[in-house]
Amino acid sequence: MNTFAILAVVAAIIGLAVAVGLASWISKAPEGTDRMKEISGFIAEGAMAFLRREYKIMVIVIVVLFLLIGFFISWTTGILYVCGALLSVLAGFFGMKVATLGNVRTANAAMESGMNKALKIAFRSGAVMGLAVSGLGLFGLGVVICVLDLGTVTECVTGFGLGASSMALFGRVGGGIYTKAADVGADLVGKVEAGIPEDDPRNPAVIADNVGDVAGMGSDLFESYVGSIISAVTLASVAAVNSAGAFSEATAALFPLVLSAIGIIASVIGILCVRGKEGGNPANALNMGTYIASAIVIVATIILSKSMLGTFNYAIAIIAGLVVGTAIGKITEIYTSGDYASVKKIAEQSQTGSATTIISGLGVGMLSTVWPIICICIAIIIAYVTAGLYGIALAAVGMLSTTGMTVAVDAYGPVSDNAGGIAEMSELPESVREITDKLDAVGNTTAAIGKGFAIGSAALTALALFASFSQVAKIQTISLLNPMVIVGVFVGAMLPFLFSALTMNSVGKAANQMIEEVRRQFRSDKGILEGTSKPDYAHCVDISTQAALKEMVIPGLMAVIAPLFIGIVLGVEALGGMLAGALAAGVLLAIMMANAGGAWDNAKKYVEEGNYGGKGSDTHKAAVVGDTVGDPFKDTSGPSINILIKLMTIVSVVFAPVFVAIGGLISF
Amino acid sequence: MNTFAILAVVAAIIGLAVAVGLASWISKAPEGTDRMKEISGFIAEGAMAFLRREYKIMVIVIVVLFLLIGFFISWTTGILYVCGALLSVLAGFFGMKVATLGNVRTANAAMESGMNKALKIAFRSGAVMGLAVSGLGLFGLGVVICVLDLGTVTECVTGFGLGASSMALFGRVGGGIYTKAADVGADLVGKVEAGIPEDDPRNPAVIADNVGDVAGMGSDLFESYVGSIISAVTLASVAAVNSAGAFSEATAALFPLVLSAIGIIASVIGILCVRGKEGGNPANALNMGTYIASAIVIVATIILSKSMLGTFNYAIAIIAGLVVGTAIGKITEIYTSGDYASVKKIAEQSQTGSATTIISGLGVGMLSTVWPIICICIAIIIAYVTAGLYGIALAAVGMLSTTGMTVAVDAYGPVSDNAGGIAEMSELPESVREITDKLDAVGNTTAAIGKGFAIGSAALTALALFASFSQVAKIQTISLLNPMVIVGVFVGAMLPFLFSALTMNSVGKAANQMIEEVRRQFRSDKGILEGTSKPDYAHCVDISTQAALKEMVIPGLMAVIAPLFIGIVLGVEALGGMLAGALAAGVLLAIMMANAGGAWDNAKKYVEEGNYGGKGSDTHKAAVVGDTVGDPFKDTSGPSINILIKLMTIVSVVFAPVFVAIGGLISF
Repeated sequence: MNTFAILAVVAAIIGLAVAVGLASWISKAPEGTDRMKEISGFIAEGAMAFLRREYKIMVIVIVVLFLLIGFFISWTTGILYVCGALLSVLAGFFGMKVATLGNVRTANAAMESGMNKALKIAFRSGAVMGLAVSGLGLFGLGVVICVLDLGTVTECVTGFGLGASSMALFGRVGGGIYTKAADVGADLVGKVEAGIPEDDPRNPAVIADNVGDVAGMGSDLFESYVGSIISAVTLASVAAVNSAGAFSEATAALFPLVLSAIGIIASVIGILCVRGKEGGNPANALNMGTYIASAIVIVATIILSKSMLGTFNYAIAIIAGLVVGTAIGKITEIYTSGDYASVKKIAEQSQTGSATTIISGLGVGMLSTVWPIICICIAIIIAYVTAGLYGIALAAVGMLSTTGMTVAVDAYGPVSDNAGGIAEMSELPESVREITDKLDAVGNTTAAIGKGFAIGSAALTALALFASFSQVAKIQTISLLNPMVIVGVFVGAMLPFLFSALTMNSVGKAANQMIEEVRRQFRSDKGILEGTSKPDYAHCVDISTQAALKEMVIPGLMAVIAPLFIGIVLGVEALGGMLAGALAAGVLLAIMMANAGGAWDNAKKYVEEGNYGGKGSDTHKAAVVGDTVGDPFKDTSGPSINILIKLMTIVSVVFAPVFVAIGGLISF
Repeated sequence: MNTFAILAVVAAIIGLAVAVGLASWISKAPEGTDRMKEISGFIAEGAMAFLRREYKIMVIVIVVLFLLIGFFISWTTGILYVCGALLSVLAGFFGMKVATLGNVRTANAAMESGMNKALKIAFRSGAVMGLAVSGLGLFGLGVVICVLDLGTVTECVTGFGLGASSMALFGRVGGGIYTKAADVGADLVGKVEAGIPEDDPRNPAVIADNVGDVAGMGSDLFESYVGSIISAVTLASVAAVNSAGAFSEATAALFPLVLSAIGIIASVIGILCVRGKEGGNPANALNMGTYIASAIVIVATIILSKSMLGTFNYAIAIIAGLVVGTAIGKITEIYTSGDYASVKKIAEQSQTGSATTIISGLGVGMLSTVWPIICICIAIIIAYVTAGLYGIALAAVGMLSTTGMTVAVDAYGPVSDNAGGIAEMSELPESVREITDKLDAVGNTTAAIGKGFAIGSAALTALALFASFSQVAKIQTISLLNPMVIVGVFVGAMLPFLFSALTMNSVGKAANQMIEEVRRQFRSDKGILEGTSKPDYAHCVDISTQAALKEMVIPGLMAVIAPLFIGIVLGVEALGGMLAGALAAGVLLAIMMANAGGAWDNAKKYVEEGNYGGKGSDTHKAAVVGDTVGDPFKDTSGPSINILIKLMTIVSVVFAPVFVAIGGLISF
C-alpha cells in the first residue's frame, strides 16, 4: 500500500522540480538598469533582514514547543512538529526569495518586452511559491507516512500540522503587522505630511512597504493544505468502519495523499498553460489555468473514488469542496471588485463624506458573509451525507488540492504591485507603470479572491480538524444543552473579536513608530527630501520587523493558551464548544473584514478612475478614509483570524490526551 | 398556592398605581412659555402620528400570528399571544406619552427652579416607563397564572412571550430606524448644508428627531422581563424533579413571580429615593436609587430562597444575575465614558484623521466584548452549578427584577436630551441649556449602561429560553459533533451580521428620503430658512414613520422565518445549533456595535470640551465622523440584535411541537 505514499512523494518532487526550473528561468531574465538593481537589492535585503530576525524567534518557539510536546505527548509527535515547522519556514523562504527575484524582472520585462512577458514573470514567481507550498507539504507528509507505520502516523501526524500552524502565525500575523505598519507609516508621513508621491525613493519607509506579504498567504495555505490531509488521515479509521469492509483504514488514509498528488500535477499543468495575449486581459489567462487544473482534478477524482474506495460518493464530497472553493472566490469578487454594484455603491456613498463611506463599506462586508456561509453549509451537508465526517475532511482536501495554482494566482498580485513600486522608484517611463498598473489591478481582485478562498478553506479545514479532535479525545457528544459547552461557545466567539482588536491596535502602534522614524530622518537630514542624500531604509525595515515581532507575541500566545486553559480548567466538552464558537464567529468576522477592506480599496480605485469627481475631489478623500480603515482589515486582522481558528483547533487535537487525562478542573 | 400569583398581581398593581401617581404629578408641573407649549405639542403630535401608523401594522401582525398560532399550536396560546402583544404595546404607549409630557416640563423646571427639579421631572418620566414595563409584564403573567391551571400555563405561556417579542421588533427596530433616519437627515442637511445649528426650529426634520426612542428600550426590556419569567416557569418541572421532593413544580413556577413582585416594590422604593442635590452630580442620585433597589432584592431573595425552596442555592443564582447585570453596566461605562482611557484614546487618535478615529473606535468596541462575555459566562457557571438550568432562568429573572429602576434610569436620558432640544428651539436662556446639557451628559452614560444591561439580560434570557426550547421539543442532546448542528451554528452566527447590514442600510435609505424632503422644503419656501414661514414638521414625521415601517419588514420577517425554515427543513437539532450560533455571535456583535457607538459619541464630546483643539478643529471633524458612524451602530443595529436573538428563540419555543412533528425534511 505504501506505493501510494511513494507516489505522493514522487508527485511532490515533480512539483518542486518544476518550481526550481521556473525559479531558474526567472533568475535568467534581465534585471534592468543599475538603479533598478540597486532598488531591488534594497528590497531583497529588507526581506532577508525581516526573515533573519524572525528565524531567531521561530527557533525559540520551535524548541519550546518541541520540548512541551515531547514531554507531555510523545517524542515522535515532537519530531514531526519540528518537521512541519521547518517545511513551512522553507516554503515561506522560497516564496519570499523568488518574489524578490521576480518583482524587478517583471518591471524590466514591462519596459523591454511589454505586458505578455511581464505577466509571465510575475505569474511564474507566484507559481514557484504555490508549488513550494504544496510540494513541500505533500513531500513531508508522504515521507512521514512512508517511514512510520500507519498506527503511529494517525497518532502523531497532528504534530506536523501544529508545526505548520505555529509558523503560519509568524507569516500571517507577524507579516501582516509588518507590511501594514510600513504601508500606513509610509503613506501618512510621505503622502500626507511631506507631499511626496507613493513609492517615492526619498521616503525612508518605502522599502519596508515594498517587502510585501507574499509569505503570509503561503504559510496560511500551507497550514490548511497539510491540516486537511492530516484530518482525513486521522478520520480514516472511522471511514473504514463505516464502509463495512469496502476498503481498509490504510486505503482511506492514503487516498487523500493520492488526491493531493494529482492536485500537484494538475497545478503544474495549469501553471504551464497560463500565457497572456498582448493586449488581452491578464485575468482571462489566469482563470484559464485555474479551470484546467480543477477539471483535471475532478476527472481523476471520479475515477479514483470508484477504484480505491468502491463508490462515487467520495468524489461527490471532494467535488463539493472544489466547487464551493471556486464559488466563494467568485462571490468575493462580486462584493469586492469595482465592476459590480457593491463597490460602486460605496463610491457613490463617498459623495456624502467619509462617515457614509464607512457605514456602507461595513454594510457590504456584513452582507458579503451570507453567500459564503451558505456555500460552506451546503458543502458540509453534501460531504457529510455522502461520505460522513471523513467526507468533510475530503471536501477540504479537494478544495485545497489545487493549492499550487491558487497560491500562484494570489502571489502574482504582490509581485506585480512591487514591480510597479520599483518602476516608480527607478523613474522608468510612464508606459511601464501603465503595464504594471494593469497587472496590479487584476492582482487586487485575485488577492481578494485568494483571501476568500483562504477563509473558506480554513473553515473547512478547522471543521475537519474539529472532527479529528472529537476522535482523538474520544468524545461521544458535545451537547449545547450542557451550559459548560455554551460557556465554551461564548468564549470561543469572543476570541476572534479580541484577536482582531489586538492585531488592529498592533498595526496602529507599529505604524506610529514608523511615522516617528520617518519624521526623525527627514528632520535630521534635509538632503533626503531634496534627493541629495540617501534615506536609511534599513532602519525602517528594522523598526517594522521589531514592532511586528513584538506585537505578535500577545495574539500568538492567546491562540495557544486559550485552548490549553479551557481544556484543562473546563474540560474537553467546553473546549469543543469554544472551538465551534471561534470557528463560526471567526469565519464571519474574517469574511466581513477581508471583503469590507477589499471593497473600500476598489471603491477608492473606482473614484480614481474619474467617477464622482475623480482624484483629489472630496469624494476621493472620503474614499481614501475607507481604504485606510480597510488596510488592517483586509491585510492583517481578517486573514489572521484564519490562523487563530486553525491553530486553536490543532493545539486542541495535539493536547487532547492531556485534557482527557485531567478531566477538567471544574467539572459537573 | 395561587396566593403567590395574587401577590404578584397586587405588587404589579402597586407599581402601576405609583406610575399613574408619578404621571399625574408630572402633568401638574407647568409647561412654560407659549413657544414651549407649541414645540412640545409638535413633538407629542409627531410621536402619536408615529404610533398611530405603527398600530395599524401591528394589528395586522397580531391577527396573522394569532391565527397561525391558534391553528398550528393552540387557541389558548394564541390568546396569550394577543395578551402579551397588547400589554407590550400599552407599556410603550404609556412610556411615550409620559416622555412627551416630561420633556417640556423638564426644560421649564430647568428655567424656573434649577437642576434639582429638572432632574426630578426627567427621572420620574423615565420611572413611569419603567414601572409600566415591569408592572404590566408582571400583571399580565400573574393574571394568566391565576386564571389558568399550572399544567396549561407551562404549555401556552410562551405565547405571551412571543407577543412581547413580536411587538419589541416594532419598538427597537422600527423605532431605531425612525429616530436615526430623522437624526442623520436633520444633521446632514441642517448642520452641514444649511449651516443652521442642531435643534434649530427652522429645520423641518427637527421634530421627528426629537420624538426620540424611549419606546425601544422599554419594549426590549419588557420582552426580556416576561421572557425570563416564562422560561423559569417552563423549567419549573425540571427543577422540581431535581430537588428530590424539596419543593413542588407549582412552587418552582410561582417563585419567579414572587421574586419579580419584590423587584417591583424595590424599584418603587428606589425610584422614590432619587433626589438630586443642587450643584451635586445627578449620576450619584441615580446610582443611589439603583443600589437601594438591588440591596432590597438581594436581602429578600436570600430569605425567599430558603423559605420557599429550602436552600440558599437559588439565591446564589439570582444574586449572580443581579451582580453580573450591574457589572456589565459598569464595564460598559468604562469603555464608553469620557472619564476613562478608551474614549480619550479615540479622541487622541482623531488627531491623525477620521480613519484612525474609526479604527480605534472599532478596536475599543471589539475589546469591550471581553469582560461582559466573561461576566456572562461566570453567571452561567454559578447559576448552573448551584441551581441547574432553572438557575440560569432565575439568574435572568434576578438581573431583570429591578427593571422598573433600570428603565427609569435609562429613559431619563432621552427625556433630558429632548428637554435640551425644546430649550434650544424655544430660544430659552443659555443657563437653561447648561442645566439640560449637564443632565444629558449623565443621560448619555446611563443610556450606554442601559444598552449594556439590555444586551446582558437579552443574552441570559435567550439562553434560558433556549433551555425551555430543549424542554418543549424534548431534545436529549444537540451535539456539535453532528455536522447538521454545525451548519445550524454557522447559519445562526451569520444572521446577526445580515440583520445588522440590513438595519444599517435601512437607516441610510430612510435618511436619504429625509434629506430630500428637507431640501425640497427649503427650496420650495425660502421663508423657512429666513424664519418667516413655518416648516412642515408633520410631513417629515410622516416620511420617517413610513420609511421605518417599510424598512422593518425584511429584518422582521427574517427573524420569524429563519427559525421556522431551519426547524422545518433541517429539524430541531440544527435549529438548536442555529439559536446557539445566533446567540453567541449576536451578543458579541451587539456589544461591539453599542460600545463602539457610545465611545465615538463621547469621544466627540470630549473633543468638544476643548481637548485636542476643541470644536471646529480638524480633530473635531474626525471625531464627528466617528459619531456619525456610531449613530446607527448604537441606536439601531446594535440594540436590534437583542430582539433578533430573543425573537428567534421564542419563535422556536412556540413552534417546537410543529418541528418535532415534522422531524426535519432533510434529516440523517
